Amino acid sequence: MPKSYRVRAELEALLSELAEGDPLPSERELALRCGVARETVRQAVRELLVEGRIRRQGRGTVVSRPKMVQPLSLRSYTEGAIKFGRKPGRLLVEWTDIPADADTARDLAVEPGTPVMHLERILLADGERIGLESTWMPLDRFAVLREFYNPETSLYAATRGMGVVYAVATERIETVLASPREAALLECTTALPMLLLHRRSVDGEGVPIERVRSLYRGDRIAFQAKLSDC
Amino acid sequence: MPKSYRVRAELEALLSELAEGDPLPSERELALRCGVARETVRQAVRELLVEGRIRRQGRGTVVSRPKMVQPLSLRSYTEGAIKFGRKPGRLLVEWTDIPADADTARDLAVEPGTPVMHLERILLADGERIGLESTWMPLDRFAVLREFYNPETSLYAATRGMGVVYAVATERIETVLASPREAALLECTTALPMLLLHRRSVDGEGVPIERVRSLYRGDRIAFQAKLSDC
Repeated sequence: MPKSYRVRAELEALLSELAEGDPLPSERELALRCGVARETVRQAVRELLVEGRIRRQGRGTVVSRPKMVQPLSLRSYTEGAIKFGRKPGRLLVEWTDIPADADTARDLAVEPGTPVMHLERILLADGERIGLESTWMPLDRFAVLREFYNPETSLYAATRGMGVVYAVATERIETVLASPREAALLECTTALPMLLLHRRSVDGEGVPIERVRSLYRGDRIAFQAKLSDC
Repeated sequence: MPKSYRVRAELEALLSELAEGDPLPSERELALRCGVARETVRQAVRELLVEGRIRRQGRGTVVSRPKMVQPLSLRSYTEGAIKFGRKPGRLLVEWTDIPADADTARDLAVEPGTPVMHLERILLADGERIGLESTWMPLDRFAVLREFYNPETSLYAATRGMGVVYAVATERIETVLASPREAALLECTTALPMLLLHRRSVDGEGVPIERVRSLYRGDRIAFQAKLSDC
């Protein structure tokens, strides 16, 4: 059995006996306990950090709370977070009208360069920054949001309130590293793998509602889909 | 505009003019061209590598072919790959009967320690190693596979041939770093973000068919889901 296995198994056994917030022994102590080099322990600790099983606290590491699991669904982040027992929140980064780039123009079925609404927000769960979301919407239909919508609340709820029906969405899921700007906004490092979701939603007539780019901290969130032959 | 933005924008402009397989200028040359430090270029290059936009070749980097996009669906990897125009393949790593651990026992509705079938395979696309898949199945129903199934072909097709109906699957999607063993099997580095999928499939009566853990190279594959209110 390779050393890395044995160390991982020992750490798993250790974690199974600890509760959320409990401190982990130091890397030096773990290396002594497992009889391996510090670097072998460091690799295993790095994996657990990226998986969100443990997190840095001060100079040590403690056991994390479980990752938030979000359904892949037409519904909003707000609903998913509440269902999982976390308090959702948003911080506005920017809300501007900008010319559509090629991808946005394609997704919203407008000419490139056409002004569109762009809303960028940090997503919070129990006050923690877990995601960064950019939404682009056609101005002809949604400029009216300026008159009543508070961007720190659910955009989905506001547009539904306008009578907009979200009928079908296509979602693409990838993993990337955070850019320096994104890492700064999410208070994480650029070495942290992120889940990147691109969504395009259309209404019952197939008219585009939004293009959304959401970047989530990979150590804090997982997505779940229910697949059937329906 | 931060330097990292400008470099990324310059690289994007450059990539848009290059074709698959074309070499990128060296980091030194890019740094000179953009008037920034080597480290700034290195960060942007690292992001593009992780995103699979470029890949290492010899001592340089070249433009990659686009990521393979797989539907999140009940159907098999084989079907998804063929639909995307890639030739699917599998390499057998192991096929053994092992005692069910806690997670497997829960997913397959057996007692922990019950022997179950475990099949581990490397997934190929046009001969390239892009994923590592472990499947656990109840022995009472599937031990018979030993008599006719070639593990380098589609397991989904073989079990469907036995009359098994895949009715519903729950899939959980996360991002992790490859362990040393996984990186060795997938011929990548442990610093590469991977997409990790856990699936549990049941038949029309709700009887568990399989537990699957699939690990995919994040630089080679993306997943896509179509969401609707059905």
